[in-house]
Amino acid sequence: MRLSQMLFVTLREDPAEAEIPSHKLLLRAGYIRRIASGVYAYLPLMWRVLKKVSQIVREEMDATGAEECLLPQLQPADLWQESGRWDTYTKAEGIMFSLVDWQKREMGLGPTHEEVITTIAREMIRSYRQLPLHLYQLQNKFRDEIRPRFGLMRGREFIMKDGYSFHTDEESLKETYRDMDRAYRNIISRCGLEFKAVEADSGAIGGAGSQEFMVLAEAGEDEVLYTEDGSYAANVEKAVALPTDAEPSPFTEFAKRETPDTNTIEKLCQFLDCSPTQIVKNVLYQAVYDNGTTVIVLVNIRGDRDVNEVKLQNALTRVADRYGGTTIVALTVPDAEAQAKWAAKPLPLGYIAPDLGDDYLQPDAKLARHILRIVDRTATDLKNFVTGANEAGYHVVGANWGDQFERPELTIDVDKAKAGDRAASNPSQTLQTARGIEVGHIFQLGTKYSTAMGATYTNEAGEEQPLVMGCYGVGVSRLAQSAVEQSYDKDGIIWPVEIAPYHAIVIVPNIKDTKQVETAETLYRELNAAGVETLLDDRDERAGVKFKDADLIGIPYRIVTGRSLKDGKVEVVERATGNRQEISIDAVVSTIGQWVDEAIEK
Amino acid sequence: MRLSQMLFVTLREDPAEAEIPSHKLLLRAGYIRRIASGVYAYLPLMWRVLKKVSQIVREEMDATGAEECLLPQLQPADLWQESGRWDTYTKAEGIMFSLVDWQKREMGLGPTHEEVITTIAREMIRSYRQLPLHLYQLQNKFRDEIRPRFGLMRGREFIMKDGYSFHTDEESLKETYRDMDRAYRNIISRCGLEFKAVEADSGAIGGAGSQEFMVLAEAGEDEVLYTEDGSYAANVEKAVALPTDAEPSPFTEFAKRETPDTNTIEKLCQFLDCSPTQIVKNVLYQAVYDNGTTVIVLVNIRGDRDVNEVKLQNALTRVADRYGGTTIVALTVPDAEAQAKWAAKPLPLGYIAPDLGDDYLQPDAKLARHILRIVDRTATDLKNFVTGANEAGYHVVGANWGDQFERPELTIDVDKAKAGDRAASNPSQTLQTARGIEVGHIFQLGTKYSTAMGATYTNEAGEEQPLVMGCYGVGVSRLAQSAVEQSYDKDGIIWPVEIAPYHAIVIVPNIKDTKQVETAETLYRELNAAGVETLLDDRDERAGVKFKDADLIGIPYRIVTGRSLKDGKVEVVERATGNRQEISIDAVVSTIGQWVDEAIEK
Repeated sequence: MRLSQMLFVTLREDPAEAEIPSHKLLLRAGYIRRIASGVYAYLPLMWRVLKKVSQIVREEMDATGAEECLLPQLQPADLWQESGRWDTYTKAEGIMFSLVDWQKREMGLGPTHEEVITTIAREMIRSYRQLPLHLYQLQNKFRDEIRPRFGLMRGREFIMKDGYSFHTDEESLKETYRDMDRAYRNIISRCGLEFKAVEADSGAIGGAGSQEFMVLAEAGEDEVLYTEDGSYAANVEKAVALPTDAEPSPFTEFAKRETPDTNTIEKLCQFLDCSPTQIVKNVLYQAVYDNGTTVIVLVNIRGDRDVNEVKLQNALTRVADRYGGTTIVALTVPDAEAQAKWAAKPLPLGYIAPDLGDDYLQPDAKLARHILRIVDRTATDLKNFVTGANEAGYHVVGANWGDQFERPELTIDVDKAKAGDRAASNPSQTLQTARGIEVGHIFQLGTKYSTAMGATYTNEAGEEQPLVMGCYGVGVSRLAQSAVEQSYDKDGIIWPVEIAPYHAIVIVPNIKDTKQVETAETLYRELNAAGVETLLDDRDERAGVKFKDADLIGIPYRIVTGRSLKDGKVEVVERATGNRQEISIDAVVSTIGQWVDEAIEK
Repeated sequence: MRLSQMLFVTLREDPAEAEIPSHKLLLRAGYIRRIASGVYAYLPLMWRVLKKVSQIVREEMDATGAEECLLPQLQPADLWQESGRWDTYTKAEGIMFSLVDWQKREMGLGPTHEEVITTIAREMIRSYRQLPLHLYQLQNKFRDEIRPRFGLMRGREFIMKDGYSFHTDEESLKETYRDMDRAYRNIISRCGLEFKAVEADSGAIGGAGSQEFMVLAEAGEDEVLYTEDGSYAANVEKAVALPTDAEPSPFTEFAKRETPDTNTIEKLCQFLDCSPTQIVKNVLYQAVYDNGTTVIVLVNIRGDRDVNEVKLQNALTRVADRYGGTTIVALTVPDAEAQAKWAAKPLPLGYIAPDLGDDYLQPDAKLARHILRIVDRTATDLKNFVTGANEAGYHVVGANWGDQFERPELTIDVDKAKAGDRAASNPSQTLQTARGIEVGHIFQLGTKYSTAMGATYTNEAGEEQPLVMGCYGVGVSRLAQSAVEQSYDKDGIIWPVEIAPYHAIVIVPNIKDTKQVETAETLYRELNAAGVETLLDDRDERAGVKFKDADLIGIPYRIVTGRSLKDGKVEVVERATGNRQEISIDAVVSTIGQWVDEAIEK
């Protein structure tokens, strides 16, 4: 393609709307254009990148035997009501756009396709002989994001590959899950990116196990914890640490102490001259279930640890049926206004005991079992601990479970792992931290959707069984922008050769120079004919402008038909390294062709 | 692909939801699955067809120098308000789905992209040196159809290629328009379809000239009129005929006659013993403009002709500014209830004169110029004609324009051409009729959108000018189904080789026969390796079931590893012709490879 015939417009200045480098660069270099908040047009150069990423995804998926299809973006509400996700997705979390057609029928714009694929499976799969089966698609997805940001990273319309597999049993599911792990690693590697596969929380999708693929970059919205030896890596939402041992408590006798102005762990430790590992910290939350029920949650955790709210939310979701709900619509630290709805008098914040006394609650909160105590594993084995006295300005010391405080009914892991902790799975290793961009996520769904929607098959014994499912997603547009976030410099983008919109750009410094133009035209033609996708900068612009633009848009190899033409040579510059060399005109096509092949095979 | 590992389910019976053959067959053969009214999942076989059609579209578009991009499906309402189409598209015609995001901002789901591309052009195009420019995309479009039907033919979610070109002047636009005419002919031919390019009405898209590409098929929703010699073809909505000459009138004196029970042309001719060509028929309409104004329209047309309501609507749109509107939201024949809103007394339907007398109108209708008379060209030259007397049971004869009736202010063509008429452009030719499926439509938009949205460029003289635009659409999913509508038999689909999901299918009649299985596996492997896309029916089913399924799904070449194996041969059947031949196993790959190449190059 000739730049003179393309929609090619670059910007000198960083656009105000962009915060992170990749977003700025894609806008400046004319790859994308904002149409609405979180909604972008992919201009021709960007679309070429996205087609290349899509093609790599297709090849790797097809190699596993998965079949490509295309499911509708418009999804009838009743399918989502069957799975029980309509309210969560359209109201509570505000994830799904919904609309009504002219007949006032409700529909959603698909952010994901479990419901649609499960209804197809329900109608078409009858027998174990049709299994396993794996369908995938590449498609625009929609999310009514609360805060769209970072360009294609968190948009309201974005391209995903999503796949769904169906199995007779967990064994078969795990086999496909392992295949997808391999396929996803191949996809991200072939796009030229560095990444980590990490244990992940399954969130609103649900199911047993799940794993995320994180492209490492400063601008990543996720935190990853990992061990140096590679034996463990997890999203901080999911990570499990083995905290340091608690120091033995100096308080061997139970006593209530006046501890003025000690409403933080730090102040309390200072006042009592003790270690935070000797304290049971009591953190108050309030959960609202989808049926409207509010539950007051008190988490007891060791003084040096923090609550992982994702783990807490999952725990509360698991006990949803106690409260007649199915899912949580809000989990917050209640403010004074929220407390006033169920508290009988102001709470002694900073001095709360492991059990919030009955006299702090309005009668109906006590009666309706709308208070739930959860103890984290870090606090269950503490002895002679310090904790709040349920009275402002007072703590107790030398307390013990079973003596002064009943053991809470739920003992679970809601501990937030952090860098410096030992890995629970391998205590000899210390957890390190990194920022990551989640580009892929694979899930073992199990029978969550098939049971809810009645999608069954008949096994060899003639019995009807729910289909066992997996699902697998990779963000195509996010992956493409991640490549920029991982690879740029002060002059612009440095595309990996594998997904660069073009491999090479031929620049004519002076289009009035016939010799320069002729050589460039010949090389442009021959390179393209040899399969090296090549641009020709034939614009009537100064050479400096052309070099700047070529750097900005990040084409891997730049060929300049300049001064060295008199020696039968052209200058070739590699974008990534800045290496320059003079190459004989006859050798340009074969040399660059070879570089491209090597880069792509690598 | 092996059928045993595919989502492959065929139905014995025609599904009740389908009306036309192609829709029935695509459902029965497992190509598509209905998810909601007018919303379909494309299962793997269908998706292969759609990818092939898309690839042909891309190749032909790229060959013209157009650049592929991808624009958002979510479109902010304000862009459509700028162009003035928001109300028409979301309310009046009910074409566009609209929704609000969580911040209550209105958005539409794109049925077309003039607004989005024009805003991009407005921001990025500055100079004539950037022109001409042509961007296209392949994408799911949405329409809130009043009556979705015929499967992919008229869906609410469907795949289109739409392209938009930008020019300095009409000359450059026409050049690209001609390129698109050629490209579209190539696309449809390469998909193996028979079609006609016809003059078309531009509808809600607007602009000067437009042309449709009609795939000829009985089930087509459009009527095409054409001449045998190929010199003329047009959509009936647009077609211009030269009606037969009027017979000279026998009524040389003006007179009012009592004509009881003659409220149809036929009865009137019988009663007066005259020809319908001697009558001026007066047809009443009511148009509602987008500003709410209602206009009563009386069309005078020759007795043997009918009103083309598309032409009428266009004429009324052209005079919209007289009534303070910009577009028509409803054009109807007013029923008694509607008439009561502006009529002073019941109208003498069947006996109305060319001018509806003032005493039939309520005073404000008279005053506000809310009545418009239009005379069709067929009625302007009539002499001594018969027409209504504005009194039930009475007509006048021997009437003349300028004598008894004022000539109407608007003389235009609102005549509905029909088979048997002479072509206006070539009166020696008679118009023929055919049914067509509109698969493509190209438009010369001119400056409609660029003027409305302020998209300009600076010309060589330094003056700011509105961009001149064209737009070009082809229905990818509709084209694919059209292929089936044009090519099937009682046993199933007969795909053109060019867009068949697979070229060949190898059938093992008996999977317990090792020799059959081995030969089939070898051929399956070798055919695919040679680029012949081949299925293997390795299911544990009776041979008859396999043959029926192969016919139903319409794969061009069937290879059966059956009885003739003992002679070193296999049976090869061509789906389209039913021709069978025994081919030596060694020659199968090269023979079928050659057939496929020939079919695709053809």
